[in-house]
Amino acid sequence: MVSLKSTHRQLTKMRDIVDEALEDFVQEKMASSQAPAMNLAREVLLAGGKRYRPVLALLAFEAAGGKEISEVMDLALSAEIIHTATLVHDDIYDSSKTRRGKPTLHASHGLAHGIIGGDYLFVLGFGLGGKYDARIVERMAETCANIASGELLQHEHIGNLATTPEDYYSIIDGKTAGPFATACSCAAIIAGASDEVINSLEEFGWEVGRAFQLVDDLLDLTGDEKMGKPRGSDVHEGKMTLPLIHALTMLHGVEREQLADILQNFSDDRWNELVSLLSLAGSFEYSEQLIENHVNRALRYLESLPDSDASKLMAEVAKRSRSRKK
Amino acid sequence: MVSLKSTHRQLTKMRDIVDEALEDFVQEKMASSQAPAMNLAREVLLAGGKRYRPVLALLAFEAAGGKEISEVMDLALSAEIIHTATLVHDDIYDSSKTRRGKPTLHASHGLAHGIIGGDYLFVLGFGLGGKYDARIVERMAETCANIASGELLQHEHIGNLATTPEDYYSIIDGKTAGPFATACSCAAIIAGASDEVINSLEEFGWEVGRAFQLVDDLLDLTGDEKMGKPRGSDVHEGKMTLPLIHALTMLHGVEREQLADILQNFSDDRWNELVSLLSLAGSFEYSEQLIENHVNRALRYLESLPDSDASKLMAEVAKRSRSRKK
Repeated sequence: MVSLKSTHRQLTKMRDIVDEALEDFVQEKMASSQAPAMNLAREVLLAGGKRYRPVLALLAFEAAGGKEISEVMDLALSAEIIHTATLVHDDIYDSSKTRRGKPTLHASHGLAHGIIGGDYLFVLGFGLGGKYDARIVERMAETCANIASGELLQHEHIGNLATTPEDYYSIIDGKTAGPFATACSCAAIIAGASDEVINSLEEFGWEVGRAFQLVDDLLDLTGDEKMGKPRGSDVHEGKMTLPLIHALTMLHGVEREQLADILQNFSDDRWNELVSLLSLAGSFEYSEQLIENHVNRALRYLESLPDSDASKLMAEVAKRSRSRKK
Repeated sequence: MVSLKSTHRQLTKMRDIVDEALEDFVQEKMASSQAPAMNLAREVLLAGGKRYRPVLALLAFEAAGGKEISEVMDLALSAEIIHTATLVHDDIYDSSKTRRGKPTLHASHGLAHGIIGGDYLFVLGFGLGGKYDARIVERMAETCANIASGELLQHEHIGNLATTPEDYYSIIDGKTAGPFATACSCAAIIAGASDEVINSLEEFGWEVGRAFQLVDDLLDLTGDEKMGKPRGSDVHEGKMTLPLIHALTMLHGVEREQLADILQNFSDDRWNELVSLLSLAGSFEYSEQLIENHVNRALRYLESLPDSDASKLMAEVAKRSRSRKK
């Protein structure tokens, strides 16, 4: 039995391994003709972040029986770098001025640098992932196309009060859960695992990814300002997250009208009003219950794997996602 | 000896083959979960364009001894799709409202769709290119990173009257000549050619690509409005193209000051003034001479290849680039 303290230490170690590999990669590019582009990209790449995707890729690789972690490192970095690329571009069209408490790339360097910086990160991510065989490249390409589809769908549902839970799941599967699933399944493929193991790890990724995004969206409504971005960003941007979709379905009459009015004419002074209505509708509990369900399903997929330290650590990552503070 | 008429017919046929493959690819994605993203992307992908990069990839493949054109088609499409991705993003930060006479993606659909549409195109391009072996993926990744570096460099030299011809060549090598060179060299690698043949085709690509961009930049100053974008776009955007760099070097005293003033405070009513100064400095002839040199070098690289219909057609593409009207 792994103790909680040792679990924490091992997860921190994993993250340090990822950070170190990322720093080495950045240094290598800084010494090349790509220095000006990397100079821009490293600002966001090395600005912190929990590195969930690459850490899960490393753990999935080990849980799938992989031995030599260097074999999976390019995939892990690729997952983190492509994720960062999407953040840089998201921040542009969401007009976000800060991320993790720091100015966003386009806010400090302008639109052109933001777009090109994001493009450069995409290229780096693809270059790293493209080294693997066709099975992996196909999954990566499909996943990244689905990120774009998810972002598009999200954008098209901005301010749309008729957004359904199915729409919401299409959006988060595309932009978040898919990349988690692909990081885990591709790591298992690289480890030479059986189809059953690859499939279990992929499903684990889907479930953890969904839990992860649900927590993210819940924290936007319940979190504090220490998260590095202002509370209620999603509401300000008109993003239809699950608690809002749920409340719009559950409330009726005057309360439904009041909620619709708040969402369509949101300002910070209506914050308490919004939170009261979401509480009344039971939307926070509903979201928490769904998060619980996704985490439990993720844990069940792990149980089908051979016992290993790595799978225990993955279980810990899944459980922690519930109490995450971004 | 291939007649001019038959050359024209064969080049048109090549372009038709590319167009057809591109349409098939679009159709395939339209029938998948990627339909919404492709619906956006196909607007620009099928909006015309001369298809120079993919046509040269097919020809280079044949000139290098390749037989089965389907082997190189994904590479050819990848080159065109990545090129289109860069155009979509360029148009955003250049604030271009039209391209090829049609509204740009962001102009008709907004910023988010423009950014995501471009990202999706990048993903598609990488997915197609990523199917090849590591040697090709590495070249592609390097080339795309250099596109970003070139764009960045160009942006950083906006309005900078001290821009040197070396800066200019770094910019165009990154954003244009590199992709031509990589399309040709990777096609030769896929054909299983020798290192000498691969190298000759790569150098051909560099030289044609440079000629191509020099012509593009010259046409911005001399072309007519039929090109689909307004004459003088580069001057309006403060882009330091070679004729301007040359004139700033050649002119002295009052005329140099007048030119600097025009470039720093440009408006359409100063057009004739600008053209007179460029003529006086001999900058048009200078650019034409450099174009001639690049085309001739490109032709010499072809001469080192075994004689083939494909290499004759490539020579024709190189020669035509001189008299191109966009």
